[in-house]
Amino acid sequence: MSATSERIVLAYSGGLDTSVAIGWIAEATGAEVIAVAVDVGQGGEDLDTIRKRAMACGAVEAYVADARDEFADEYCLPALKANALYMDRYPLVSALSRPVIVKHLVEAARLHGATTVGHGCTGKGNDQVRFEVGITALAPDLKCIAPVRDLALTRDKAIEYAEKHELPIETTKTNPFSIDQNVWGRAVETGFLEDIWNPPTEAVYSYTANPATPRDPDEVVITFDAGRPVAIDGETVTMLQAIELLNQRAGAQGVGRLDMVEDRLVGIKSREVYEAPGALALITAHQELENVTVERELARFKRTVDQRWGELVYDGQWSSPLKKALDGFIDEANAHVSGEVRMTLHGGRAVVTGRRSEQSLYDFGLATYDTGDTFDQSHAKGFIELFGMSTKLAAVRDQKHA
Amino acid sequence: MSATSERIVLAYSGGLDTSVAIGWIAEATGAEVIAVAVDVGQGGEDLDTIRKRAMACGAVEAYVADARDEFADEYCLPALKANALYMDRYPLVSALSRPVIVKHLVEAARLHGATTVGHGCTGKGNDQVRFEVGITALAPDLKCIAPVRDLALTRDKAIEYAEKHELPIETTKTNPFSIDQNVWGRAVETGFLEDIWNPPTEAVYSYTANPATPRDPDEVVITFDAGRPVAIDGETVTMLQAIELLNQRAGAQGVGRLDMVEDRLVGIKSREVYEAPGALALITAHQELENVTVERELARFKRTVDQRWGELVYDGQWSSPLKKALDGFIDEANAHVSGEVRMTLHGGRAVVTGRRSEQSLYDFGLATYDTGDTFDQSHAKGFIELFGMSTKLAAVRDQKHA
Amino acid sequence: MSATSERIVLAYSGGLDTSVAIGWIAEATGAEVIAVAVDVGQGGEDLDTIRKRAMACGAVEAYVADARDEFADEYCLPALKANALYMDRYPLVSALSRPVIVKHLVEAARLHGATTVGHGCTGKGNDQVRFEVGITALAPDLKCIAPVRDLALTRDKAIEYAEKHELPIETTKTNPFSIDQNVWGRAVETGFLEDIWNPPTEAVYSYTANPATPRDPDEVVITFDAGRPVAIDGETVTMLQAIELLNQRAGAQGVGRLDMVEDRLVGIKSREVYEAPGALALITAHQELENVTVERELARFKRTVDQRWGELVYDGQWSSPLKKALDGFIDEANAHVSGEVRMTLHGGRAVVTGRRSEQSLYDFGLATYDTGDTFDQSHAKGFIELFGMSTKLAAVRDQKHA
Amino acid sequence: MSATSERIVLAYSGGLDTSVAIGWIAEATGAEVIAVAVDVGQGGEDLDTIRKRAMACGAVEAYVADARDEFADEYCLPALKANALYMDRYPLVSALSRPVIVKHLVEAARLHGATTVGHGCTGKGNDQVRFEVGITALAPDLKCIAPVRDLALTRDKAIEYAEKHELPIETTKTNPFSIDQNVWGRAVETGFLEDIWNPPTEAVYSYTANPATPRDPDEVVITFDAGRPVAIDGETVTMLQAIELLNQRAGAQGVGRLDMVEDRLVGIKSREVYEAPGALALITAHQELENVTVERELARFKRTVDQRWGELVYDGQWSSPLKKALDGFIDEANAHVSGEVRMTLHGGRAVVTGRRSEQSLYDFGLATYDTGDTFDQSHAKGFIELFGMSTKLAAVRDQKHA
Repeated sequence: MSATSERIVLAYSGGLDTSVAIGWIAEATGAEVIAVAVDVGQGGEDLDTIRKRAMACGAVEAYVADARDEFADEYCLPALKANALYMDRYPLVSALSRPVIVKHLVEAARLHGATTVGHGCTGKGNDQVRFEVGITALAPDLKCIAPVRDLALTRDKAIEYAEKHELPIETTKTNPFSIDQNVWGRAVETGFLEDIWNPPTEAVYSYTANPATPRDPDEVVITFDAGRPVAIDGETVTMLQAIELLNQRAGAQGVGRLDMVEDRLVGIKSREVYEAPGALALITAHQELENVTVERELARFKRTVDQRWGELVYDGQWSSPLKKALDGFIDEANAHVSGEVRMTLHGGRAVVTGRRSEQSLYDFGLATYDTGDTFDQSHAKGFIELFGMSTKLAAVRDQKHA
Repeated sequence: MSATSERIVLAYSGGLDTSVAIGWIAEATGAEVIAVAVDVGQGGEDLDTIRKRAMACGAVEAYVADARDEFADEYCLPALKANALYMDRYPLVSALSRPVIVKHLVEAARLHGATTVGHGCTGKGNDQVRFEVGITALAPDLKCIAPVRDLALTRDKAIEYAEKHELPIETTKTNPFSIDQNVWGRAVETGFLEDIWNPPTEAVYSYTANPATPRDPDEVVITFDAGRPVAIDGETVTMLQAIELLNQRAGAQGVGRLDMVEDRLVGIKSREVYEAPGALALITAHQELENVTVERELARFKRTVDQRWGELVYDGQWSSPLKKALDGFIDEANAHVSGEVRMTLHGGRAVVTGRRSEQSLYDFGLATYDTGDTFDQSHAKGFIELFGMSTKLAAVRDQKHA
Repeated sequence: MSATSERIVLAYSGGLDTSVAIGWIAEATGAEVIAVAVDVGQGGEDLDTIRKRAMACGAVEAYVADARDEFADEYCLPALKANALYMDRYPLVSALSRPVIVKHLVEAARLHGATTVGHGCTGKGNDQVRFEVGITALAPDLKCIAPVRDLALTRDKAIEYAEKHELPIETTKTNPFSIDQNVWGRAVETGFLEDIWNPPTEAVYSYTANPATPRDPDEVVITFDAGRPVAIDGETVTMLQAIELLNQRAGAQGVGRLDMVEDRLVGIKSREVYEAPGALALITAHQELENVTVERELARFKRTVDQRWGELVYDGQWSSPLKKALDGFIDEANAHVSGEVRMTLHGGRAVVTGRRSEQSLYDFGLATYDTGDTFDQSHAKGFIELFGMSTKLAAVRDQKHA
Repeated sequence: MSATSERIVLAYSGGLDTSVAIGWIAEATGAEVIAVAVDVGQGGEDLDTIRKRAMACGAVEAYVADARDEFADEYCLPALKANALYMDRYPLVSALSRPVIVKHLVEAARLHGATTVGHGCTGKGNDQVRFEVGITALAPDLKCIAPVRDLALTRDKAIEYAEKHELPIETTKTNPFSIDQNVWGRAVETGFLEDIWNPPTEAVYSYTANPATPRDPDEVVITFDAGRPVAIDGETVTMLQAIELLNQRAGAQGVGRLDMVEDRLVGIKSREVYEAPGALALITAHQELENVTVERELARFKRTVDQRWGELVYDGQWSSPLKKALDGFIDEANAHVSGEVRMTLHGGRAVVTGRRSEQSLYDFGLATYDTGDTFDQSHAKGFIELFGMSTKLAAVRDQKHA
């Protein structure tokens, strides 16, 4: 590596676009390009293969960072505690991975004295914002570059460049979709899905089996401690293992498919298909354990906090001061979310069938209508009278002035 | 009917408790009891049979009001526009029916000069609040009486009374659950469900077939106009018909079962099982049509409004000033929620597979990554810079003071 | 006016920047410039003088629109109903005037077949957003141009241009501040105020007398009907007259000065000084009348709605779908805000000293501790028991698991 | 003290009602009464005098707890961090003191093996709820008794009892108001204030001088560290000292008077007059320092959190799980609220005139319109385009379907 050239750290996926981007950026800027691939559980090619390809494509350095446990513990777990579902649906698959990738890009930039970070996003999606606002929050001095958006690196030009330079990357396979995946889920868009009347086909899916295929149900018991899944069917698991195991078991039952029209931060609507079997099974279980262990008014306000958390992370504000303060609320709210949830995974559904907890606020004595009832019904009359007082006064007034 | 006796209007279901309550109230208070049964699509016995039973049990008058269309149009439809799901789950089945029943009770009270309204609720549930705050809001001068809560009418005493007075009502059948149902859904509680680790059995369900039974999927297209379902598979329907038809079709596919621990207004948690096939199919379709036709910031704020609407209605505040003002917001937000949603009903799932609308905000030209892309990516850089500015400034500050 | 040239409608103030902009835009674009001045009660120069100056500076047409009543009725009144105070302080003086100016600019553009609208804002403030998003919402086909931002029209160049072309506009007077004013208030920024430790001097203020000057207090009674001020001291007033009269009377007492650091939409903080004597007197009175006439839960939720309304209008989203739906809520909430409020204006304070209303929800009988008390205290015990139940259950649990 | 009698801890103020209550409770229940007075800075009589009076009135034990610093540090400071103003006005004077009094009552009950806690509240106010829900949250096994509400201890009976038993307490002075005071402020209600058209007279006030009296202004500089006032005019202060000093200085300038109609938790509206010179001066300064040091989106969301915090504390939910989780958010949001605020106290107004902070997010370079401007205005065009996109798309749609 030259001591005098400017250096650019590039978020590298191993695919066509970022493989070409190595040389494209170098030619356009004169800088040395350092390729950084971050393993967030996306599977696919061997990471050493990816590393070698980056070097073959002209990178002066190439790294692969194994961020799987870090991603699960520090990004997916907070999302689980927040029951994070953007627009009540989407578990923030890509939105969650960007900040951890950003963290490793910035670390690499610092290590190598780079002044700029590059990424492969287009100029009309959310990910460019997540990358660039994320980078600016961790390293306000670093610049950003997006060759697809800023250096006119279209798909056609990328194929042409790869063929001309004989890069070790396939250029003929035309992928019908744009895909992003990690251990928390998988996102599919573009292609025929851009006609929002078209249904997805089975070919769209990879993490989940067809829910309509007849098969036997699978029953699972998830143990939580302060909002964190710590055991599955009694076996201790890390957060990463919990997700992976439930990706397999819930995925095998077709759980976790989503098809929605979504509000992007850049102001347009897009059609997205997601698969997130583990994430959705965990969130469903976590929500029900909250129902059992979280006091009513806390639970009601937490829905507003959870929604805002999801919007912020979707909008690329992982490192924002508001996100940090919401985490303070959410952690406190999860302090007692401990216990077990039993679910049946079957036919595309993850259904809670039982819950038990030392921290339960469900009081059998107060709830039962059978022997053992401890609820003093004589309190109700006074409660109703005062609880309804302000509505009653307004009603009297309104009828007088109708 | 005597001209001098005080009169009490009783919400009458035809069941043991309210049949006995007719005489029980009359004996305890010396008042004449007028029985009023309101048809909200609960099915079951013929309503004329119920009317005759009330007379046989000692009512001085007995009415049956057909409120099914009124319930669908004026109670279920606003709930659909609000995507009303208490605790993100429960479509407010019982909570919605109480206000329309209350309305008919008050009308009957006015017609017959009654001074008091009676109902069969216990002193530890939500329904007593919904009845009594509802009545006070429509008729602040009316008093309320709940024989189970206020006149010590236990189940054992009811059976004893019915047998002693040879009332025309079965007393031997011990119902294992407490059930409330109407066209919007069905609620089941108590019995072995009070142990929250116990799964529900198939015997609990009545509106839905077992989702695990293999069968062919059913595809349905629902047409909405300003948030209201107006056609199903191209056939014009009333709101009531839309719910009934989808209760059948979605119910036959096992759609709409819920099992949850719920926060009651009186401060305790209870375990509830619900079935609401039509309601949940309609809400799912409506939500997705909102995704297509409602602008992002309106959609984001509407989630908070919808949540508060659901809490209020759950809490018996149907007639409250806040509920009325939220309706003002919700109606405005639904002005453009028109178009078609195609769903597959199968295996307990109602899955949207397509949507189209003249009012769509999805813009193919802006969304597509293919030929025809009209999105000007050059705007992105400036957007990201200013959108991320406040987070960046905070990051610079925080790092300086870390 | 030529039939073939492109036409640009320019928001014209009569000041140096927009006077120069007429020729500057024409030279840079080859278009004909139509100057439009909108009277929103800013006072200052005679409007016919301003119109003639525009023509003398090279406009092909020049209009003055008297939008004072329209501004008061359709922009200030909704703000009053929303108690609109951005950051709990700022009554949205400039933010409210932009949409009505935009409306007249778009009307002029349509009338004259213009394709572009120009304005005098810089590239770092909120007003550029309010103009351009406002225009795009009313006329998505119109383009926008801002010569200061887009055509490098700096202050120095403007002076040079004016002198060179002998424009009939003073160039020597260096204004120490940047000022925007209308009938709803007056905004002052820049100059020595940019050091946020510096206090404002008396020279900053124009709408308000020094509150510290000893003088006699002024007592005023404002009558509202459904949130709208309809009389002052018993004399019927229009909305415009109400504001003007209170600008005089409250301004004479030094009421309505604000000095704050503010969060701009473009991501930076700025220091602003405002004067809004009429606006703040009206909002203070309106808030207190809401306290008397609006039911508690509606009042609580309305604070969230009011806050979001203020943020949206500040952020240039006057024509957004969310703003419209919030108006639906706010109008409904104001239906009963009728009655009289008595205030003392003195020493910089507008203090409510009395309120009365046919629509009052204040019930003397329920509130009094003297003879005539109608509140049945026996209800309290049951109310407290059930109201506190969920907190009690959580406390028992927490102590067990501490 | 007898080993066998039941014991009741009574919240003792030294006034007529609670002095009589000692004997009244003892006679009605046969229990021994332990009087506990808690010093929260209410001033007035010497506390040893109060202690002796309790013994003279028949208490078996009497304590005085100095809770002034504890009240300031653990109750007033969190309120300051939350800018707690119920209904945007009332700084929660009485609402804040109840939890600390409750804490000492529960400690005394534990120490002496009492089974019940008594208080002097009526059955129509907020304080009974704050006492009883507060006690149940700290000690769910303790019972509560309120002699005024539960044992028919009216004012007339109290006077009669005191005279008959020759209690050492004045009975002739008829106080025209009901008053509650502590270091955070003073609350006045009832009497002629119950007619909400009546203005308060100067006789109502005690903590504040008449703001209309001409006097010289007082300038003060308050230093905050993470939301906590740590110095005044450069002199280090405790939280208690900060409040006391500002009560004097702001009170001497007539700052901090409030007159409002308020929504009580029990469903009625009441008229309240408050004085809180120190509290309001501190909150005003704290809010402005937040304006300087808190990022925009955090500041916007914090308003909702602050409002809910105020409602909860007003409603007696100090010990609720939601309050605790909101504190998690608020503490995090205050982490950078450090710096100095200069205020002028004069004529009933506390006006911020300057602010400076190492943690400031105000960036002179970005804000200035003078030399040194570092803001890149070229970003604005792209920002506006994408920020306004969703509104524009909705506008196009709406115009097509108008």
